Amino acid sequence: MDFSIRAANVEDCKDIARMIVELADYEKVTDHVKITQRDLEQDGFSKNPFFHGIIAEVPEQLRTKDGHTKVGYALYFYSYSSWAGRAIYMEDLYVMPEFRGKGIGKALMSKVAQLGLAAGCNQLNFTVLDWNKSSRDFYMSQGCCDVTTSMGYHCMRCEGEALQHLAQP
Amino acid sequence: MDFSIRAANVEDCKDIARMIVELADYEKVTDHVKITQRDLEQDGFSKNPFFHGIIAEVPEQLRTKDGHTKVGYALYFYSYSSWAGRAIYMEDLYVMPEFRGKGIGKALMSKVAQLGLAAGCNQLNFTVLDWNKSSRDFYMSQGCCDVTTSMGYHCMRCEGEALQHLAQP
Repeated sequence: MDFSIRAANVEDCKDIARMIVELADYEKVTDHVKITQRDLEQDGFSKNPFFHGIIAEVPEQLRTKDGHTKVGYALYFYSYSSWAGRAIYMEDLYVMPEFRGKGIGKALMSKVAQLGLAAGCNQLNFTVLDWNKSSRDFYMSQGCCDVTTSMGYHCMRCEGEALQHLAQP
Repeated sequence: MDFSIRAANVEDCKDIARMIVELADYEKVTDHVKITQRDLEQDGFSKNPFFHGIIAEVPEQLRTKDGHTKVGYALYFYSYSSWAGRAIYMEDLYVMPEFRGKGIGKALMSKVAQLGLAAGCNQLNFTVLDWNKSSRDFYMSQGCCDVTTSMGYHCMRCEGEALQHLAQP
């Protein structure tokens, strides 16, 4: 299939916001999405951005029935491992259902890996949900390892009132 | 106990590198540490740093038998959640064994939370090893949630040859 992968720009935020909701629907957690197009514009495309993005785009003649040509995305940011040094973190990887199985997800992830290596990163990190077997199988087929299973890592989070409370001196 | 928390600077990298190894010893993974003082200096204290750090320091009269006054540290970087927006990630939190139980770890984590809130972050994320019950108990007592247990998140990693291979177009 004819598609291209390119860096996201601020004009892509409407489509990224749409696809974030689509991904959350797929992950069965739509009510968790608080982010808006405006948040993405501010947080990803001002000075000192909190994330970067890449977009998968198809030609006009392959657009969806709703008129979309932006059919996939990945968000990433640079991170750090105190063992391994520079790392890149892939926050999201999404391809619209009708465009799956055509190498677009692989191409997006490959681009994140390229960007990471170009920046001197030694690791690409991300998370996956345990019930999402097709994604887990895909990642394992790419040689990724599950460090929750192999080393016992648990993802922890502090937010809301607990975060406010923790920040009290 | 008398101690202070302050931003790390490039002169702290020797002590941070020492404590990274101490933490890895405690986590029983010393052989995983590839990072050097020089890496920390380059990656944390040049333009566009990959991480930031804070240091816990005690007065001279409380120094260890080896002469150390820098007795704890945390590393962090800014990250992003496509659901919740701006986030801060705490990569490491460490206090030397003889200084534990005196509120230093809590003070370091509190500082990371403050820095996150000041930057508009809605989440503080980190990982913990499943066998590290004392740390898990501490984090849970601070109102943190274990999203691996509650939502099924698995930490995934691609590195080495798999990362090189993935990056091939």
